[in-house]
Amino acid sequence: MKNLMNDVDTALAESLDGFAAAHADIVTLGDDREFVRRSAVKPGKVALISGGGAGHEPLHAGFVGHGMLDAACPGQIFTSPTPNQMLNAAQAVDSGAGVLFIVKNYSGDMMNFQMAADMLDQENAVVIVNDDVAVEDSTYTTGRRGVAGTLIIEKMLGAAAERGDSLTQLKALGDAVNKATASMGVALTSCTVPAAGKPTFQIGVHEMEVGVGIHGEPGRRRVPLASADAIAEELTSAVIKDLALAQGQQVILLVNGFGGTPLLELYLMVNAARKVLARAGVKAVRYLTGSYVTSLEMAGCSITVCAVDAGMLALWDAPVHTAALRWGM
Amino acid sequence: MKNLMNDVDTALAESLDGFAAAHADIVTLGDDREFVRRSAVKPGKVALISGGGAGHEPLHAGFVGHGMLDAACPGQIFTSPTPNQMLNAAQAVDSGAGVLFIVKNYSGDMMNFQMAADMLDQENAVVIVNDDVAVEDSTYTTGRRGVAGTLIIEKMLGAAAERGDSLTQLKALGDAVNKATASMGVALTSCTVPAAGKPTFQIGVHEMEVGVGIHGEPGRRRVPLASADAIAEELTSAVIKDLALAQGQQVILLVNGFGGTPLLELYLMVNAARKVLARAGVKAVRYLTGSYVTSLEMAGCSITVCAVDAGMLALWDAPVHTAALRWGM
Repeated sequence: MKNLMNDVDTALAESLDGFAAAHADIVTLGDDREFVRRSAVKPGKVALISGGGAGHEPLHAGFVGHGMLDAACPGQIFTSPTPNQMLNAAQAVDSGAGVLFIVKNYSGDMMNFQMAADMLDQENAVVIVNDDVAVEDSTYTTGRRGVAGTLIIEKMLGAAAERGDSLTQLKALGDAVNKATASMGVALTSCTVPAAGKPTFQIGVHEMEVGVGIHGEPGRRRVPLASADAIAEELTSAVIKDLALAQGQQVILLVNGFGGTPLLELYLMVNAARKVLARAGVKAVRYLTGSYVTSLEMAGCSITVCAVDAGMLALWDAPVHTAALRWGM
Repeated sequence: MKNLMNDVDTALAESLDGFAAAHADIVTLGDDREFVRRSAVKPGKVALISGGGAGHEPLHAGFVGHGMLDAACPGQIFTSPTPNQMLNAAQAVDSGAGVLFIVKNYSGDMMNFQMAADMLDQENAVVIVNDDVAVEDSTYTTGRRGVAGTLIIEKMLGAAAERGDSLTQLKALGDAVNKATASMGVALTSCTVPAAGKPTFQIGVHEMEVGVGIHGEPGRRRVPLASADAIAEELTSAVIKDLALAQGQQVILLVNGFGGTPLLELYLMVNAARKVLARAGVKAVRYLTGSYVTSLEMAGCSITVCAVDAGMLALWDAPVHTAALRWGM
């Protein structure tokens, strides 16, 4: 794998500097680049903080801003941020209404965010995201992994925090949205962590990994590459089954690229997935398509479905102004 | 190369169907998927039409909507659309104020758009985009190629058309913005056109192609992979020199990914490029970073600089609502 880098050790720092310069109207970097924060904190609003290893951009820093996160703590590539990063971020953006941590379910993230939550003087709570239906327990996880659905939870919680919901309300809403959200992915190639210098996993030229994790963790099975329709059928059906969607249910459909798959193919997968939803009597009322929760340059995609009611849909539609998601303002 | 597809021959059609479903609030497909059009035409506004081969998504269909294009005509992957597509698109979105075609400088596109322009009954004009400073004449081009700067021209012309500029004014503005815009790219890997089934070009594991075109056309030279700083220096300096930028000039900086390069690296390139601009006394006042004018899954990026005055900056900042660019609404 070839990278546009100067030095593996400084790549994240240089990237964060570029990000902060490009989005100076929205974000500010914390000292020692420990976190990316919303420049303007809204008094009386619960502070939403997420974070995790880099390599999944635009997640999470790309979702800092009005109507979404107040801060994001980036670890090195595929490495958890430290409790200190989270503590310092919380102190920087807390405005007295408490802090909600949004954490993808990986053992390292869970441990470090929990440690920060325990050490924090401010009132706080943790929402755990575990939307990946592919497997129970994985390389870095006990239980289900947190993947692309994270952005839906961050978007809805961000909108609810913006309108003034309390910490208790937000914690309940976050758990509810997480329960209403399910994802499953497929990889056609591996990614290569620059510091490792070799592909995370080996995969044949005619194979795919069904149920892959966003760090290249094994999924359900390694099989010959299937057609887009067959892949969409398997991923979407698994998600529909997990959510036990009823006929007539309204959903948001997120087709998320892992980084190396062209947008032309992602929209082709949208077309395939919406046919599976339609056959199940499920109605996609909103779509989001693009590479939002990535795995460096891995080829493949995931399908995420979030079952919504009118209240959740209004939260999704509410104005947002971040580097990676922007509408209504 | 592995793709998420059912059949190479139907891939574009299926992708367009997915795109139209996902963005039904903005666009409608023409008959036989000949074009993607803005659903609501604004009476009295000059119609802006672009197009070109697929494989560069989100260009052009992703830029159809309020404040940008009225229609986009997609050809097959890396293949020009036909004059009939452009004619039918023009007839569908013309509201009596004339039609402006925005055409990237490739021989096939130029010939077919010119043919459509000649056959069209409505008043019309053509803006040719040739922002790529890497080489004069190329595999598919006489003169300079049109690359990522196209989106800047489409954005500014879209804003000007929206406020009611005449066809004559828009043609002059388009030519002026094109003249103020320059780009140059680098590829680390080739792309593979699915119908061809093999990489467009061969490149060693430690090599890069400096000045590559967006179809993988040769650039200035094939050399060992350099550091991000060295690459940014070469690309940005070439662009500054071409535009003959003066000290104090304000610019928009677009760091565009070709499809296979992670966002983390693109922001690292933003950081590298802005230092080159700063050393030249040039001030980046707006940034756009992401994979907007792609070459399927090719790894690499281009750097585009557009020298702006206050009027052009206002056009850039004006509200836009398309699938791929959205702000202010």
